[in-house]
Formats: sequence, C-alpha cells, structure tokens
Amino acid sequence: MIEKVDVLIIGASAAGFTAALTARKYNKNASIMVLRKEEATPVPCGIPYIFGTLFDVKKNCMPDGVLIKNNVKILTKEAKAINRDKKTVTLADNTEIGYEKLILCTGSTPVKPPIPGIDLKNVFFAQKDTDYLNDVLTRLGKVKDVVIIGGGFIGVEFADEFRKRGLNVTIVELLPRCLQLVFDEEYCIMAEEKLRERGVHVITKTRAEEIVGKEEVEKVRLSSGEEIKADIVLIGIGVRANTILAQDAGLKIGEQRGIWVNEYMQTTDENIFAAGDCAEKFSFFTGKPTGLKLASIACREARIAGVNIFGLKRKNPGVIGSFSTIIGDLGLGAAGLVEKAAKENGFDVITGQAVGMDKHPSAMPECRELKIKLIFDRKSGVVLGGEIAGGTTTAELTNIVSLMIERKMTMDEIATFQYGTHPAFTCSPVGYPIANAAEDAIVKM
Amino acid sequence: MIEKVDVLIIGASAAGFTAALTARKYNKNASIMVLRKEEATPVPCGIPYIFGTLFDVKKNCMPDGVLIKNNVKILTKEAKAINRDKKTVTLADNTEIGYEKLILCTGSTPVKPPIPGIDLKNVFFAQKDTDYLNDVLTRLGKVKDVVIIGGGFIGVEFADEFRKRGLNVTIVELLPRCLQLVFDEEYCIMAEEKLRERGVHVITKTRAEEIVGKEEVEKVRLSSGEEIKADIVLIGIGVRANTILAQDAGLKIGEQRGIWVNEYMQTTDENIFAAGDCAEKFSFFTGKPTGLKLASIACREARIAGVNIFGLKRKNPGVIGSFSTIIGDLGLGAAGLVEKAAKENGFDVITGQAVGMDKHPSAMPECRELKIKLIFDRKSGVVLGGEIAGGTTTAELTNIVSLMIERKMTMDEIATFQYGTHPAFTCSPVGYPIANAAEDAIVKM
Repeated sequence: MIEKVDVLIIGASAAGFTAALTARKYNKNASIMVLRKEEATPVPCGIPYIFGTLFDVKKNCMPDGVLIKNNVKILTKEAKAINRDKKTVTLADNTEIGYEKLILCTGSTPVKPPIPGIDLKNVFFAQKDTDYLNDVLTRLGKVKDVVIIGGGFIGVEFADEFRKRGLNVTIVELLPRCLQLVFDEEYCIMAEEKLRERGVHVITKTRAEEIVGKEEVEKVRLSSGEEIKADIVLIGIGVRANTILAQDAGLKIGEQRGIWVNEYMQTTDENIFAAGDCAEKFSFFTGKPTGLKLASIACREARIAGVNIFGLKRKNPGVIGSFSTIIGDLGLGAAGLVEKAAKENGFDVITGQAVGMDKHPSAMPECRELKIKLIFDRKSGVVLGGEIAGGTTTAELTNIVSLMIERKMTMDEIATFQYGTHPAFTCSPVGYPIANAAEDAIVKM
Repeated sequence: MIEKVDVLIIGASAAGFTAALTARKYNKNASIMVLRKEEATPVPCGIPYIFGTLFDVKKNCMPDGVLIKNNVKILTKEAKAINRDKKTVTLADNTEIGYEKLILCTGSTPVKPPIPGIDLKNVFFAQKDTDYLNDVLTRLGKVKDVVIIGGGFIGVEFADEFRKRGLNVTIVELLPRCLQLVFDEEYCIMAEEKLRERGVHVITKTRAEEIVGKEEVEKVRLSSGEEIKADIVLIGIGVRANTILAQDAGLKIGEQRGIWVNEYMQTTDENIFAAGDCAEKFSFFTGKPTGLKLASIACREARIAGVNIFGLKRKNPGVIGSFSTIIGDLGLGAAGLVEKAAKENGFDVITGQAVGMDKHPSAMPECRELKIKLIFDRKSGVVLGGEIAGGTTTAELTNIVSLMIERKMTMDEIATFQYGTHPAFTCSPVGYPIANAAEDAIVKM
C-alpha cells in the first residue's frame, strides 16, 4: 500500500469534485484524495458548447485549483479493483491506496448502439475525455455535413452548436418528437420549430439503420430508405452507469443498472458510498428506480455522501429532476413529472397554463414571451411538475418550480407565493406566470 | 345611484388590476367595475425606465384590453366618499355607484418633504400620472444637471436612467449609504461603486437643506454647505398610503398609516377589502406592522382579496418582501430580513456567503460573478433572508430565496435542495451559490 487516506473518491467529474469539496468543508483534518483516469476532466454539461461557442476543450475543464486550494490530493491513475476486506483500491500499476471511506463517482459512458458502421472513423460520442473531444474539434474544421443520431438534450444542443459553425445538420430521432422523454408534446413542438428555424433538418419516427462508409463515414441510411450525406456522425442516445469496479467488488447493482444505494447514498458496503451517474436513482414521487441522470443530481448526491461519510446525517428523498436547455434564443426547462409522466405514474392530473413576458412593460429591451405549464395531482392539489419556455431566466424559473415540488406546495399556495418583480428582470407582478398557471389550474377544479 | 355592481374596485394600478382579474377568474358572472382617476395607469415599477430606456410614457401603461377582455368595466371618475350603510361610493360628479363588495386599491403618493423650495418648478416626484410623467419627459430634453434627493430604489434607478441620457446626476442621501434600508453594508457599497462607475455623483450622510431658485430650480444647498447646480430635482424619499377615502368612511388606520386589514385583507367593514400600497402590512417574521410597499406585494394581496370577496378562503401570512434592482449591468436583490434587520428584530443571526459565476464554464459568453449571502436564525437553522448581486437572473434567484423563507427551510434543506443547472443559464452544479451559502453557514455553526 503506497498510501492510506481517510476519504478516497474515485472520479473527478461533477460528483467527485463536489464530494471532495463537501468532505473538506465538514472535516478540516481528514486526508482526502481524488483518483481520476485523465489529466483533466471536462465540465460534463459544457461539452456541446465546446463546438460552437468556446472552440477550446481547455476552456471547458473542471478547475483543479479549487481542489488543491482545499487540500485535496489528486492522483491521476486508473482504479482497477476495490478490496473491501483490506479497504484498499488497486491501481493500474498494481499499487494500492488504502481508505477509511470510499466514494464511487465513476460516472457514465455514452451508449454505443449496435448499428452497422458504428465503429467507422468520424463516428463520435459526447465522451468526457479531453483528447477525444480535441480530436472531434479538429475534425469538425474539415467537414460540412453532420448527422446526429438521437434528439434528446445532447443531440439538440450539439445540433444548435453545429449550426453556429454553419454545418449542415440533420437530427434522426426514433420517437415521434425530439426531447420526447422530458417534455410534453407542445413543448417538444416548440423545440422542433426552433431547431428548424435555426436550419436544422429534423427527422423523427425514423431509425438510423446503418452508418455507411469504408473507413470514414459517408452517409447514414434510415429506416425510411432515405440516405443522408455525413462527414461526421454524433451519437446521443443516452448514457450507462459505470459500475464495473463496484460489480467486481460484489456491491449490489440496481434495476436501472446503477450502483444500489440507500437514502444515505451508502452502497451495500457501509464504508463505500456512491454518487452521481454511477449511482442508482429513485423517484421522489414513487420511490421507484429511475433512469434520470443529470450533473445537478450528481452534485446533490455528492453533497449528501460527502457529509455522511463522517456520520449518517443527510437523507436523499429521491430525485425530482430539474433541467433546462437552449436552442437559439429559446430556453426550455422542466422539473418533476411532465403531464404524460404523471399520468403514466397513475396520478389523476390537472394542469394550469399561463403566458407572460419575461420583462415588463413588454416594451422593455430584449423582452420575450414566457410560457409555463404546471402539473398537479387533482386529489391533493400538490404540484408534480412544470414546463417552461422562455429566455435567460428559464433555468432559475424551473428551479423555483422544482423547489415548489420538493416542498409539496398546493396550487393555492403557489398562486399566492411571495415572488418579487423588476422591469428589467421579470414578468410583471400582475402577469407573473408561475402564480397565474396555478390560478388557471384552481379555476379548472 | 347610477349603477350597482357586485364588485367595485377603486384604483387601477397593480393591486386594482390584479384584484379585478382574480375576481373574474373565480366568478364568471359577477359584475366587476374598476373606478380610476386617470385615463391610463402607468406601470408603477416601470416609471424610472421611461426616462432612459422607453422614452415614451404610453409604452409604460397598464393594458386596459386585458380588463375589457375579462368583462371588467372601467369607469374613469374620481371617488369622493364611501357610504358604508348604503353600500355606495359617491363620485366627483355626485353620482353614486352601489357595491356588494368593495376593494380599496387606492395606492400611495410620493412623500413631499418640507424642504424650502420644494414647490419650485422642475421639482419632480415619481407620480403615477401620465400627464405629469409626460411633462417630466419633455423637460428632461432641455436640461443638463439633475439632483436626486433620496438614494433608495427610486433614486438609484432614476440616476442610472438619467445617466443613459448623458445628464450630470447627483444623488443626495441622508443615511450613510444608498439603499441602506434594504441591503447590508457590503451590498450598498457594491451599489455605490457601480453608480460611481456609471458616472453618478453620490453624496451620502448629507441632508438637502434647500432647493434654491426663483421660479425654476437653480441649485440644491446641502447640509455640508456645498451647493449643487440643478436644472431638475427628483425627490425619491418614500411613499405614503392613500387612505383619505377609508379614513373619512371611519375605517381603522394602522400604525404604519395604511388601511388596517386582517389576514383575509378585510378592513374593519366586512364588505370592504383593501390591497396594495394603501393597505397596512404585517411582517412575516414578527407579525408587527411594517412600512414595506412593493408592486409584487400589492398583487399578492389582490390575489388574496380578489378571492376572499366571494367567501373567506385565502390567508395572508404577512409580507416577506422580495425585490431587486439594476444599476448598469449589476443586478441586486434581497428577500426577507437582511442581517442588520434580523438583528434589530432580535434574532441570533448566522450568515453564509458564496461566490459563483452565473454561467458555466466561466468562459461562456456574458458570464458574470454572482454573490450571495443568506441570513439564518441560529437557534432553528431557518433562513430569514438573502441578498444577491449578479446578472439577469438576480430577481428569480431572489425569488428562490423568498420561497425558501416562506417555506421556513433550514440551512441543511437549502444545501441539498433540488436545483438544476445549464451552461448558458446558471452557475455550475458544483458552485451553485444558494446551496453553497447554506453550506458555508452550516460549517460555521
């Protein structure tokens, strides 16, 4: 054993980073080490923005300085095995690091679908790997036509960024709508309309049957028979939890293939915790396993695990899910269960809608429309979810809705909640759409 | 009696407008009338923005169309008296309107301090009167030097707008700091620094002793002896509730000089409600009368009164106060009790601070710093207030804090609340400052 630390964290992305900083906040003296595979860790949600906004992988890396300043050791080596009895982790060079408490933040890997041609050159994924992303960035400078397989958040954000470079972009989505897993249809339609307005070619209800080419991609053949010219293919159809280390160590794996954890983020070994994409998630609404994976959830889990390693204190009530994206100038956000998800989960649903402007009066510069839909449980009147389409405040408005869900607020409480307003920053107090959407639901009851 | 209506509302600003719309939502058949003095009602918070952004009073008026579409009658006449026995309101022309329920939304009037020279031409107030504001706008075209007496929100916002026109602007504030009644010192300093950076001449701890001139203003003489050249003087030292109608009708007036109301927004006459600046306010924290007046509070009270006229249903737990402003590109927001207010109210206070960026990674375009301070009650760990300095999301972040106060969240609940993040819209999930400010307070305990 080359070293023994009090807290060993495997993985230095959103969860690992936050777990280390949280542990340090709550314990000034503990020795804390982060073990990671790569020299630098890309900011996960920022990856699409490397390609049309930042143009530099280095500008999208987690700042090591913060860890160093907080006296967290960084060791850039790959972990090969966990020896639970000895409480050590074996590295790729067969040396070992001892731990008192271990936090697994091993993240996730993009799903590689079994499409013929998937291994051709110029087929890419949103890999959290700086060398890999640098390679994509370089190749993008030499291409014209891009096909994106998958119209979820990743696909949509890459499409928008590629358009900023003037590339010809086609999204191929299997489901009837882009973003269908996270929004109700009317919001998916807004997203697709904005993508088309931005010049993205959107093809839905269609399977990518084959990626065609000799060494490099030439085209993508669709289930419709159509063939789309492609110099590059980007795959964005989801991610899978990285659980091999945990599995090999005999830790329980959950139904959604994440490392099983209890509400304290503790695995089946009381000295090993897990947080982030690698950990199993449970729904705030039903307690059932859910496939939701977000950097914000990862950090929250790490805030829980990073405290509980020193004594079980924080509980995880299950994930709500609050997220947002941007297409051109259109912000889209959702929190909790959208209408169809609430219905699928057996709720008797009533919705409320409101439209406002995001500044007031509407003659204020850069004022734009703000749409909101709130989803309620008819029986209790409690809010289950919300969807927002707006401008720069979309994400924080979505966070307000997320907080309302977390606090189990009723429509009446939401209609009279104590918001503030300002001409340059918000809708008018008369038209404030979160309150008005709740009023709309109330009068429908 | 020329007409009898089910619901009569006096005043058509934020509260009157919202009371009418709320009443209509909850009762499709009731006859609802809004009585107002002026043909058009300026959007109250938008008034400063007429002068450096909108350049047109008409662009800052409440939209009558919304009332008309909702079958609310508008009568442009002044109310002279309330006859509670007969349940009528006498108009200036001595005709009468009968009511079943009456909602007083008579608003407030800028305070006119007893400074010598206050009645000179070119001394102005933020009057909610279109003709008056048009006059100010016209005169502004011909002047160069402006003195603003009062460094609160109104004064600061006017100063910033006047600078956009290139005027020489001086703020004279009696207290040691601008915005001192609503922010702690470090936030006041940020505001003053930004005002100075914008070219505003800020003079504090100084009284305006006299406004000097023959017919028109020429200069303002200060308690320091200094004299400041002035073509126009704007007074922004606060507002006073308009309560004459209520007082004359024998309704109780509160300690803070507003029309006394119970938690249902009902006055001492069960058929008469009051909402907005004219109504007495009670603190969410102490239950004691408070002088806080905001359009957002007005609208919320109107949402309560507008429902309760059909049967007492909604209760007002007292005002928290959530507000924000902008100086140049700096957003400043506060909710609840700032540190000094919490201490004055007898709380044993502990604060938490955090600094982040409002986008992530920080290389994202238009990314700027976000500072937050949360104020907690040490005994219960419950949040009492918050202050924020940031960009375009300042107001909605302040609303998140306001909601946390309303739901009596503890520091631990705030540290792990379920926020979402996006590179273009928010701080990183690791650095999300509301959660981090709570963590900062926890580790200080």
